[in-house]
Amino acid sequence: MDAVEYTPRRDQLVYTFGGAAPVMTVQPGTVLKLWSEDAFNHALTSVDDLSSEKVDLRFVNPQTGPFYVAGAEPGDTLAIHIVDLTPARSWGASATIPFFGGLTSTDRTAFLQEPLPDTTWIYHVDTARQMVGFQARHTDFEVALPLEPMLGTIGVAPPGGEVRSSLVPERFGGNMDSPEVKAGTTVYLGVNVEGALFSIGDGHYRQGEGEACGTAVEGAMNSTIIVELIKGGAPAWPRLESDSHWMAVGSSRPMEDSWRIGQVEMVRWFEELFGLHQMDAYQLLTQTALAPIANAVDANYSVVIKAAKNLFPRAHAFDGIHDELRRRSQNL
Amino acid sequence: MDAVEYTPRRDQLVYTFGGAAPVMTVQPGTVLKLWSEDAFNHALTSVDDLSSEKVDLRFVNPQTGPFYVAGAEPGDTLAIHIVDLTPARSWGASATIPFFGGLTSTDRTAFLQEPLPDTTWIYHVDTARQMVGFQARHTDFEVALPLEPMLGTIGVAPPGGEVRSSLVPERFGGNMDSPEVKAGTTVYLGVNVEGALFSIGDGHYRQGEGEACGTAVEGAMNSTIIVELIKGGAPAWPRLESDSHWMAVGSSRPMEDSWRIGQVEMVRWFEELFGLHQMDAYQLLTQTALAPIANAVDANYSVVIKAAKNLFPRAHAFDGIHDELRRRSQNL
Amino acid sequence: MDAVEYTPRRDQLVYTFGGAAPVMTVQPGTVLKLWSEDAFNHALTSVDDLSSEKVDLRFVNPQTGPFYVAGAEPGDTLAIHIVDLTPARSWGASATIPFFGGLTSTDRTAFLQEPLPDTTWIYHVDTARQMVGFQARHTDFEVALPLEPMLGTIGVAPPGGEVRSSLVPERFGGNMDSPEVKAGTTVYLGVNVEGALFSIGDGHYRQGEGEACGTAVEGAMNSTIIVELIKGGAPAWPRLESDSHWMAVGSSRPMEDSWRIGQVEMVRWFEELFGLHQMDAYQLLTQTALAPIANAVDANYSVVIKAAKNLFPRAHAFDGIHDELRRRSQNL
Amino acid sequence: MDAVEYTPRRDQLVYTFGGAAPVMTVQPGTVLKLWSEDAFNHALTSVDDLSSEKVDLRFVNPQTGPFYVAGAEPGDTLAIHIVDLTPARSWGASATIPFFGGLTSTDRTAFLQEPLPDTTWIYHVDTARQMVGFQARHTDFEVALPLEPMLGTIGVAPPGGEVRSSLVPERFGGNMDSPEVKAGTTVYLGVNVEGALFSIGDGHYRQGEGEACGTAVEGAMNSTIIVELIKGGAPAWPRLESDSHWMAVGSSRPMEDSWRIGQVEMVRWFEELFGLHQMDAYQLLTQTALAPIANAVDANYSVVIKAAKNLFPRAHAFDGIHDELRRRSQNL
Repeated sequence: MDAVEYTPRRDQLVYTFGGAAPVMTVQPGTVLKLWSEDAFNHALTSVDDLSSEKVDLRFVNPQTGPFYVAGAEPGDTLAIHIVDLTPARSWGASATIPFFGGLTSTDRTAFLQEPLPDTTWIYHVDTARQMVGFQARHTDFEVALPLEPMLGTIGVAPPGGEVRSSLVPERFGGNMDSPEVKAGTTVYLGVNVEGALFSIGDGHYRQGEGEACGTAVEGAMNSTIIVELIKGGAPAWPRLESDSHWMAVGSSRPMEDSWRIGQVEMVRWFEELFGLHQMDAYQLLTQTALAPIANAVDANYSVVIKAAKNLFPRAHAFDGIHDELRRRSQNL
Repeated sequence: MDAVEYTPRRDQLVYTFGGAAPVMTVQPGTVLKLWSEDAFNHALTSVDDLSSEKVDLRFVNPQTGPFYVAGAEPGDTLAIHIVDLTPARSWGASATIPFFGGLTSTDRTAFLQEPLPDTTWIYHVDTARQMVGFQARHTDFEVALPLEPMLGTIGVAPPGGEVRSSLVPERFGGNMDSPEVKAGTTVYLGVNVEGALFSIGDGHYRQGEGEACGTAVEGAMNSTIIVELIKGGAPAWPRLESDSHWMAVGSSRPMEDSWRIGQVEMVRWFEELFGLHQMDAYQLLTQTALAPIANAVDANYSVVIKAAKNLFPRAHAFDGIHDELRRRSQNL
Repeated sequence: MDAVEYTPRRDQLVYTFGGAAPVMTVQPGTVLKLWSEDAFNHALTSVDDLSSEKVDLRFVNPQTGPFYVAGAEPGDTLAIHIVDLTPARSWGASATIPFFGGLTSTDRTAFLQEPLPDTTWIYHVDTARQMVGFQARHTDFEVALPLEPMLGTIGVAPPGGEVRSSLVPERFGGNMDSPEVKAGTTVYLGVNVEGALFSIGDGHYRQGEGEACGTAVEGAMNSTIIVELIKGGAPAWPRLESDSHWMAVGSSRPMEDSWRIGQVEMVRWFEELFGLHQMDAYQLLTQTALAPIANAVDANYSVVIKAAKNLFPRAHAFDGIHDELRRRSQNL
Repeated sequence: MDAVEYTPRRDQLVYTFGGAAPVMTVQPGTVLKLWSEDAFNHALTSVDDLSSEKVDLRFVNPQTGPFYVAGAEPGDTLAIHIVDLTPARSWGASATIPFFGGLTSTDRTAFLQEPLPDTTWIYHVDTARQMVGFQARHTDFEVALPLEPMLGTIGVAPPGGEVRSSLVPERFGGNMDSPEVKAGTTVYLGVNVEGALFSIGDGHYRQGEGEACGTAVEGAMNSTIIVELIKGGAPAWPRLESDSHWMAVGSSRPMEDSWRIGQVEMVRWFEELFGLHQMDAYQLLTQTALAPIANAVDANYSVVIKAAKNLFPRAHAFDGIHDELRRRSQNL
C-alpha cells in the first residue's frame, strides 16, 4: 500500500477533537505522511513577535485531520504507530504567554498578580548535528540541545457528542504533551465514534517533562505514521507501547488524579498481560513503574506511568501489534 | 578520619524529624556507617503478618539519628553524600495497609468504601545476582527484580520548633521516597536548628516512582554516608546532585504544588549555576527538565525535577563539593 | 408580551452545551415557561430501579433548549431571571451511582476499591406543606424536608466551537449545581456564540451544598424565567444576583481553583460596583464574602462566592437589571 | 466554681500545638477568662507598618495556653464551650503579606511572579454600634461592618509526638479560621496526649468565609470559655455544635479532601445521632448539609460541613453536653 500524503491548507486546520468533518477516509494499515503547522499557527517567527499580540489561545495546536478510519466503531482500539517525525522548518519557537504556563497564575489558578513578561525564544535547528540551539534573551548564554521530535497532540473524537479544544488532554488523547509520543511508539486510543476521527498536531522539536512554561520548542512537523485498527479492546485511557516500555497516560486535575488514572490503567493492563490478580499487579507496579509528568500546564495535567519490558516476562499486548508495526515501519 | 559506626537499639529509634535529642555529635567530614530498621519496625516477617494487626502508623519509618553536626547553624547547608547502601537482611517486605497508599481512599481522601485487602508480600534478596524476588500472592507468577537500594527518609529538624512525623516529606527533607536518594547522590538540606539534627531511615531494596501502594520493598539497611557542612547557602527545598544530574524535590499537596515547588527551586538553581535571568532559566528548564514523581502516597506528595548535566556547560554547585565527596568516597 | 411555553419531546432532549440546533428563537424580554425532564431521564421511578442498570452517564441532565436569543453576540451578557420553579411531578429520586459522587472513588479519583452499594431513594412531594419526604432504606427513619426547588444546570454554548456534556460546570455555566439558582435569582452569563444558545435542566426539589452523593432530589420541573440581553459587559465567569446577594461561581479542579476563580471574579465585580482599587476590593471581600461549596462531585467542582448587599452601600449591577426583572416578575 | 483568669506575658506566648509546657492545670468544668494577643503579635498598629518588615511568619498566631485538663487521656473528647468573645482593643489590623494568602502565589503554589503590594489596613471598633470600620487605602470608600468576633485557632496537642505551627489547621483543630468558632459554639476535639494541652488564639473581629487575603480583622481578644471533658468518644476530626447546627471541620489539601473529610465525619456523626445506616446518612446529608469554606489560605484548607438541627428529629450529641454548657454559660 502506498503512503498517503496530506498537507492541510490553512483553512483546513481544525482546533478541536470532535466537531470537524473528516478530511479523508483511510483504510486500516495505511501509511500516512502528514505535515502539521506549529502550535502558534506560525504566528511567532522572531523574538519580537509577542504572544499577547499574535496568539489567540482559542485557536492554537492546529490539527492535521481528522481522518476517518474505515471500519472503526465505538469500543474498538485505534493503534497509531509513529514511524518518523522530522522538523518541517529550520527553526522552532517558544514563548511565555501571559497567564499561561506552569509557574504563573492562570485563568484557573486565578490570582491578582501581574503576569510574567511576555517573552519569545527562537531555536535554530542544526540538521547535521541534530540539535536545536537555545539562546538566552537576557544574557549571552547559549547551548545546543539534542533534537528530540515528538507530537504534543494525538487523539480521537470524544464520546457523547463532546467537542474539545486541541489544548485539552483527556481520555480521548489530545494535548498530552508527552515526550514519549515519538518515533517508535505505538499509541492505543479507544474509539468513541464511527471512524474514530483522529488527528495529530503540536509538533515539538524537543520538550522537558512537564512543559514548564507552557510551550515546548514548537515547530511544523513532517510525520510518518501507520494507522491500524483492532476490533474491540478499547482501553479506558490512552496506552503507549515502545520497544522498551508499556505506558498509560492519565490526564485530569489535580495532578494526583492524573497519576491515579494512569496507575489504575496500568494495573488493568498488567492483569491482562500476565493474568495477575489486581492486588498483585498493584504490588508489582509499585516496585517497578516509572512516573514522569508529561504536562503540568494544560487544561488537564498529564502523567505517564511506564513499565520497562526488560523487567518482566515477555508478553504481547494487543496480539503483538506493536512488533508487527515496527517490522512494517522498517520496510518503508 | 575513621568511620563512625552506629546501630540504634530499639529504644533509640525515633519517629520524628525534630523533637528528639541527638544520639551523638559528628564533625563535618565524618564518614558514618549506620544501620536502620525497616519501615514496619520489623513487624512484617511473613506473608501471614498483616499490617492491620502489627503496624501502628504513628510509629513507622524508625529513624537512625538524629545526629548533631558540629558548627551547623540555621541558614547553613548540610551535604550528605551517600557512599553505599547495602541490604542488612536477606528479605524485604511490602504491604497494602488498609486505607493507606495511592490507589485507595485514605484518612485524607476520605470515602465511604471498604478498604482493599490487607496483604503482605515478602521479597527474598539474591545477593549474588543482586536481585529481589517478587512472588504473586494469588497466582504462581514470579519475577526477579534488580536490587536498587535507596533511602525513603533523610532529613533535618524543621524550623519554628515544629516536630514532624517521619511519614512526612517537607521542606526539611523527610519521607521523600525518591529512588534518586541512592549511592552516589549528594543530598543538600537547609539547616533550621543548631546542629541540623539529621537522621535517615526507611531503607528500600527497590521502589517504583510514586511508591503506588504506599510501601516499597522495605528492609533494614546498612548505609555509609559522608556528612559535610557548607556555611550559608541553604536551599529553600532539598536539592540532590549525582554525577549525572542536578535535582530539586518539592513535597506538598496537591501534586501540582509539589511540581511547582521543585520547578521553582530548579529555576533558582539554574540562575545561580549559569548566571541566567529568571525567564531564561524558566525557558531552558522547560525544554530540558525531567519530572519523575517520587511518591503519591505520603502526607505530602513529592516530585523530583532533574536536569541532566551533560546537556549543559560544566558548572559547580556549592563549590564543587559533590565531586570532592565522590573522590573521598572512592578512597574509603 | 405573552409567555412562551415549551415542553420538549423526548427526542428533543439534548445532553450538551453547544452542538445542538436551537429549538426556537426568543426575543430579549421574553417570559419562558419551560418543562424539564429529571436528571435521570425518568429512569428511576422506584427504589427498585438501580442506576447501574438504568442510567447512562453519557446521557443525563437532559436539557430543555437551546434557545437562540435574538441579537446576542459574543461579548454580550445574557441575564436569565428565575421567576418560579415548581415541581412537575409528585416525587423525586436520588441515587448513589457506582463510582459517581463525592464520597467514592470515581473514574478520575481512580482507586481499586469496590463501589458503594447502588441504592435509590424516592422522595414524595407534599404540595400542601411544601415538603419532600426522606425515607431511609435500611431503617424506618423518616423526615420531611422543605421543598427548595433549584436548577442544577443553566448555561450557554461554550466558545471556540467546544461542545460540553451537560454534566460539566464551567465558564459557560452548565452543571453548577448551586442551590442559589432558585426563584428570585438572576443569572448572568457571558455570550460566546451568536444567539447565546442557552438551556436549562437538572431540576432539584432540594439539595445540600456540595451535592455529596452526586445526585440531589432529582425531579421534572416547571420553570418560569425571563430572558434579557445586555449588550457587552460579559463577565468572565457566571455571576448571580438575588435581592440579598451578589455572587460569582467558579468551577474547576482542584476545588481551591474553583474558589480562586470565584473570588477573583467577585474582586473584579467589586471594583466595578464601588470603584475600588483591586487591593481594597480584595481586602473588603476577605472580611465579608461567604463561600459555600455548590458541588464537590461533578467533572468540575463549583464554589459560590457571595456578598450580602446589606453590608455595603447601595449599588446597581448591570444598570439595575435585577431589580427591573424582579418588578416584571411580580406582574406576571 | 470561680472563673480562672489568665493573661500571658509576651514571653509566655507559644506558637505551636504540642511542644510547650502547660501554663496551668484546669479541672473539667472550669470557666476560663483568657486574653490573647493578635495574630501579628501586635506588630501592625498603623497602615504604615508593613508586614514584610514587621511580621515573621514562623511566629504568628501566638497562643494563650496550653492548658492541662486534669484527667484528659488519649481517646477522650475535650468540649470547649465559647461563652463570650469581646475585642480587647479598639482596633484590628489586616494585611496582604507578600506571598501569603488566597489570591497570590505562595511558597507552596510557587510561581515566578512578583508579590502583590504589601498593604496594611486598620479597622476601628465602634463598641456602641458593635461595628468595625473598613477604610479603603486607595480611594475614600468607607463602610462600617458588624463586629462578629471569632477565634481563628483552637486546638489540642497532636498525636505521635508531633508539634505543629499555630498556622496549621489539622485533625487536632488549630488554625481552622472558621467564623463558626464564636460565642455560643461548643468545640469537640479528640484528646491525643495526657492533659489534652489545648490553647486558643488568633482572635478575629470579623472574617469572611475563606479568609481570602490570608488575614482577618486581627485583634487581641478577651475570651470566656468553659472546658469540659467527656471520657472516650473522641471524634476523628473537630466537631462543632451550636444551638442551631451540628458541624464538622476537615482541614487538608487539596480543598476537595477537606470537604471529603468533613463530610465523612458528618456521615459518622449522623449514624450515631440517628442510628442511620451509612448509606442513608450519606443520602440524607446530601440533601441537607451546608458546606462553607472556612479558610483557603492556610497550610491546610478548612471546610465546614453543617447540618441545621431544625430539619431533623431532636437528638443529643455527647449526651446533651452542649445544652448543659449553654445553661451554665447563661448563669455566669
